[in-house]
Amino acid sequence: MSDSASSDNPDLPGVGLPLPPMSLARWGTEAEAKDLNESIRGLLRDVLGVTADSGVQFDPAAVTASPSRLDDDDIAALVTLVGSGNVSVEDAQRLPRARGKSTPDLLAWRLRPEVDCPDAVVAPASDDEVAALLDWCGRESVAVVPFGGGTSVVGGLNPEAGRHRAVVSVDLVRFDSLEWIDTVSGEAVFGAGVTGPRAEELLAEHGYSLGHFPQSFPYASLGGYAMTRSSGQSSAGYGRFDEMVRGLTVVTPVGVIEASRAPASAAGPDLRQWLLGSEGAFGVCTRVRVRIHPVPEVVRHEAFRFPDFATGAAALRAVEQQGTGPTVIRLSDETETMVNLATATDSIGENAGGDAETGGDAETGGCLAICLFEGTTGHAESRHAETRAVLEAHGGTSLGAEPAQAWEHGRFGAPVLRDSLLDNGALVETLETATDWANIPQLRDAVVVALTTSLEASGTPALVMCHISHVYPTGASLYFTVVAGQRGADPIAQWTAAKRAASEAIGAHGGTITHHHAVGSDHRPYLAAEIGEVGVRMLRAVK
Amino acid sequence: MSDSASSDNPDLPGVGLPLPPMSLARWGTEAEAKDLNESIRGLLRDVLGVTADSGVQFDPAAVTASPSRLDDDDIAALVTLVGSGNVSVEDAQRLPRARGKSTPDLLAWRLRPEVDCPDAVVAPASDDEVAALLDWCGRESVAVVPFGGGTSVVGGLNPEAGRHRAVVSVDLVRFDSLEWIDTVSGEAVFGAGVTGPRAEELLAEHGYSLGHFPQSFPYASLGGYAMTRSSGQSSAGYGRFDEMVRGLTVVTPVGVIEASRAPASAAGPDLRQWLLGSEGAFGVCTRVRVRIHPVPEVVRHEAFRFPDFATGAAALRAVEQQGTGPTVIRLSDETETMVNLATATDSIGENAGGDAETGGDAETGGCLAICLFEGTTGHAESRHAETRAVLEAHGGTSLGAEPAQAWEHGRFGAPVLRDSLLDNGALVETLETATDWANIPQLRDAVVVALTTSLEASGTPALVMCHISHVYPTGASLYFTVVAGQRGADPIAQWTAAKRAASEAIGAHGGTITHHHAVGSDHRPYLAAEIGEVGVRMLRAVK
Ligand SMILES: Cc1cc2nc3c(=O)[nH]c(=O)nc-3n(C[C@H](O)[C@H](O)[C@H](O)COP(=O)(O)OP(=O)(O)OC[C@H]3O[C@@H](n4cnc5c(N)ncnc54)[C@H](O)[C@@H]3O)c2cc1C
Ligand SMILES: Cc1cc2nc3c(=O)[nH]c(=O)nc-3n(C[C@H](O)[C@H](O)[C@H](O)COP(=O)(O)OP(=O)(O)OC[C@H]3O[C@@H](n4cnc5c(N)ncnc54)[C@H](O)[C@@H]3O)c2cc1C
Repeated sequence: MSDSASSDNPDLPGVGLPLPPMSLARWGTEAEAKDLNESIRGLLRDVLGVTADSGVQFDPAAVTASPSRLDDDDIAALVTLVGSGNVSVEDAQRLPRARGKSTPDLLAWRLRPEVDCPDAVVAPASDDEVAALLDWCGRESVAVVPFGGGTSVVGGLNPEAGRHRAVVSVDLVRFDSLEWIDTVSGEAVFGAGVTGPRAEELLAEHGYSLGHFPQSFPYASLGGYAMTRSSGQSSAGYGRFDEMVRGLTVVTPVGVIEASRAPASAAGPDLRQWLLGSEGAFGVCTRVRVRIHPVPEVVRHEAFRFPDFATGAAALRAVEQQGTGPTVIRLSDETETMVNLATATDSIGENAGGDAETGGDAETGGCLAICLFEGTTGHAESRHAETRAVLEAHGGTSLGAEPAQAWEHGRFGAPVLRDSLLDNGALVETLETATDWANIPQLRDAVVVALTTSLEASGTPALVMCHISHVYPTGASLYFTVVAGQRGADPIAQWTAAKRAASEAIGAHGGTITHHHAVGSDHRPYLAAEIGEVGVRMLRAVK
Repeated sequence: MSDSASSDNPDLPGVGLPLPPMSLARWGTEAEAKDLNESIRGLLRDVLGVTADSGVQFDPAAVTASPSRLDDDDIAALVTLVGSGNVSVEDAQRLPRARGKSTPDLLAWRLRPEVDCPDAVVAPASDDEVAALLDWCGRESVAVVPFGGGTSVVGGLNPEAGRHRAVVSVDLVRFDSLEWIDTVSGEAVFGAGVTGPRAEELLAEHGYSLGHFPQSFPYASLGGYAMTRSSGQSSAGYGRFDEMVRGLTVVTPVGVIEASRAPASAAGPDLRQWLLGSEGAFGVCTRVRVRIHPVPEVVRHEAFRFPDFATGAAALRAVEQQGTGPTVIRLSDETETMVNLATATDSIGENAGGDAETGGDAETGGCLAICLFEGTTGHAESRHAETRAVLEAHGGTSLGAEPAQAWEHGRFGAPVLRDSLLDNGALVETLETATDWANIPQLRDAVVVALTTSLEASGTPALVMCHISHVYPTGASLYFTVVAGQRGADPIAQWTAAKRAASEAIGAHGGTITHHHAVGSDHRPYLAAEIGEVGVRMLRAVK
């Protein structure tokens, strides 16, 4: 990966450390980039008034990195701690660790080519090295930003120095192995830098799987998943990542925390739960102990059509509250279903498995639901039969396996498509929240109105699509994909206004500011409103 | 309940506040007390050398309460805050809130009749009253011990003044209602003082159930469940109590925390998870928001016999890891199975459903497993069939429904039996832990050896019984019931030594110091070893 990556950034000299695999201004690599198909071009042109080349383009030659504020003595000290091959102040190394992969990040490469960078990149390989590094940084007033896969969409990687004199990016890339596996208890310990695909590869050798498939799967790291409470597409079957975590090793400035004792305990506030979602605030996570399961014998697929979103949501609720046990269950609203039908194979936003031939009837509206069932044959079949009965009793019509297989096939495609949409002058971004079942329809409507109103005020129509992709006994997540036209000289500001409107609507209508993207710097202003004054004080007391 | 309770303590004058329903020196009320049957008497005599009347008896007349350290001005101040009927310095009110219900507590009533009591009992009825109370206590250097059901078995109610000049027991009894119910989301908000049976009664009016059935169900409170991370007998189906909690209101000295936003969130360390299991350390929990489910249409029962504990444990593991979905699943080890068969209807410790006619073959040993399946008919039947297939494939032999029904029928009986055993000179107590599946047999053996060795050193044989009653994908709980003879002048010290040996074995063999009984003052010494130096520091920073 790192090979293709360096060749991906031909403008940047290669250095010792492996480079993060993604292109600076894209989700994927240059090699993955592809043209928009005709139906999407048509939709952009006819519905949003966006024409090719109306987007501002990325110019690698224009990019400059802020100079490093660390001097030769600092670098010498860092080299002593982790070895010379594992420290870099090269622009080529600092630039790809300066920003995450939100749409504002991707636009910033195009619009703000003068980049605030971490002052150095350091790649330790042991807890002792991390501890020594934190110690040095503490004494030297240097801030630390851990770097996992670099897929943050909430400004979590911003090199904010605050009151410190410099910032180092601590890349976990060398914590890259499966350290231990216990197939009896169904557990494995991984280095925090291991990516999703690598973890699956290492487990597959033992016939096991982790089953965590967020859309950022190709690049995000296990440490990043834990530190952001990530949630993957199979959350109905295997749980959120925070539920998979059986233990964590976090190196803090005051010592190493091994929060890994028992599968369940009543021993007071659960340390794991403090560390999960802490986004590096307590220290550097070097190791994650996760629950694993045998590679499923079979996977069954079925898609359903519901007449409208509220009916579909009630059906998903019945499935979850009855506990019929699908591995994946998700529901697109009318707009998402329609757009995906209209744009065929390369669906915008979430590929909801739309297929004009089998995917239901776009004329009459309707909402597409996708189900997958995994396990032994008997287990998958009994879950499938029970789930189908509940969905049908709640107004669902089976569309067969194909749309669900199409969804599975295309499920990591949307972020690559985003790159092309941005290049073509569209503004496309996602946001997410969660709330109680009773509040799902109202919250969806409120966010749609907020986004549409804000974007219309900026001079563009907007397509706001929504789906439910994570269900709980008492509620569900809502995931929004927005496509509009880039307007004005600063589409980042255009999106910031829309996002602010959406975040305010979420707060006012009882949603959480983030179901799985974490807080980062982008959501910080909304956290206090959500957890209250006293909550913030408690957080501050520990951090 | 409080009527029968006051009449239960004829030695104590009645006063304004309701008295906790249990007798001082017993789990149940005097009315519930019953004689030991012949088979248990025989077992005590023949196996443990314990004869009737060898136990030290409780003498209500000998009981004295430590004088209250609060003066008239203090009481006047408290009365201003909560009203005169809701403050008491009467011994009759302070005594029943002075101790919990562990065996050392019950023995202390017999052996240490000079009782350290809280200096007053106060029963506020609103968040504002609690806040005012905490404020006054803070200013006046008075410690607060919240009192729920009074069933703590870890010294959680000990009125430790520490550096304060006095202690008040804050009874949640007036937070006694179902405040809100949402049957769409499947949630309800209860006052923290509501007991298990009362919650079920209130929910039943709506056709709903909480499904939390710890053995302390008859008396423990929802606030107590939350503050101790309690786990009930249907944990396989409905989860531990901490998993049922959707939100909490905790009044702290610096303000009210409403940790209740969304069904799931990635917004940093989860405040709920700090408060759960905090045992009053942050403040007083006044309200609990829990997930609820419709009263099940059907309940199916089946018991199985396994040739030995390791085989049975492997079968339970397969059930949980495959996710076949029983509501209750538990497995007694050889000793527990044998003792319960031998003692017939009133089984010692845990009634594992033993019945000499159907319960398997005591001669050849073996272990009894109990399963219950709840839900709609179709749901319960498909779970039942799948679970049975897995258990049979792993060496289980069906014993039909009857032993499982007998277990369900008698499941709250053991604590009442403990009262009679103590009266008759036996030492009987329970302890619990949890560990990974791979470590289950070793940890069980280590704890059995530690307990047996310690009790033998005190001059008595011991029966150590064990069962698994809570299962997780990566591990399970182990629950031990110990019966031995009271020896020496101080059977409390005798048990303390045995418990210390067990706790050390748990620590040395990778178990948690508590799976569901909480930390209290009894387990405090072992917590640091479990969560480490840095963990303790983090706790201290917030508390
Ligand atoms: C296109 C796209 C799709 C996405 N889809 C999903 C999705 O489906 N579900 C989902 O949950 N999220 C999704 N995300 C968000 C993101 O991928 C996740 O939050 C992910 O968990 C971040 O992992 P990472 O390894 O890339 O972390 P990074 O982006 O490298 O870091 C994220 C934050 O965690 C900190 N951090 C990282 N590693 C460590 C460590 N070892 N120790 C301490 N702190 C650390 C960083 O400092 C930063 O604050 C998506 C993002 C993108 C761009
Ligand atoms: C015979 C017996 C059987 C048991 N079986 C089980 C079992 O099966 N499963 C299980 O999990 N536990 C069991 N327990 C332990 C005990 O019942 C539980 O820990 C229970 O959750 C305590 O609830 P309570 O309301 O009685 O709390 P209390 O005993 O009143 O208090 C327990 C602790 O929590 C604090 N507290 C209580 N209420 C509040 C509040 N509202 N706000 C702040 N702090 C508060 C107290 O100060 C104390 O530290 C058993 C105990 C006994 C005696």
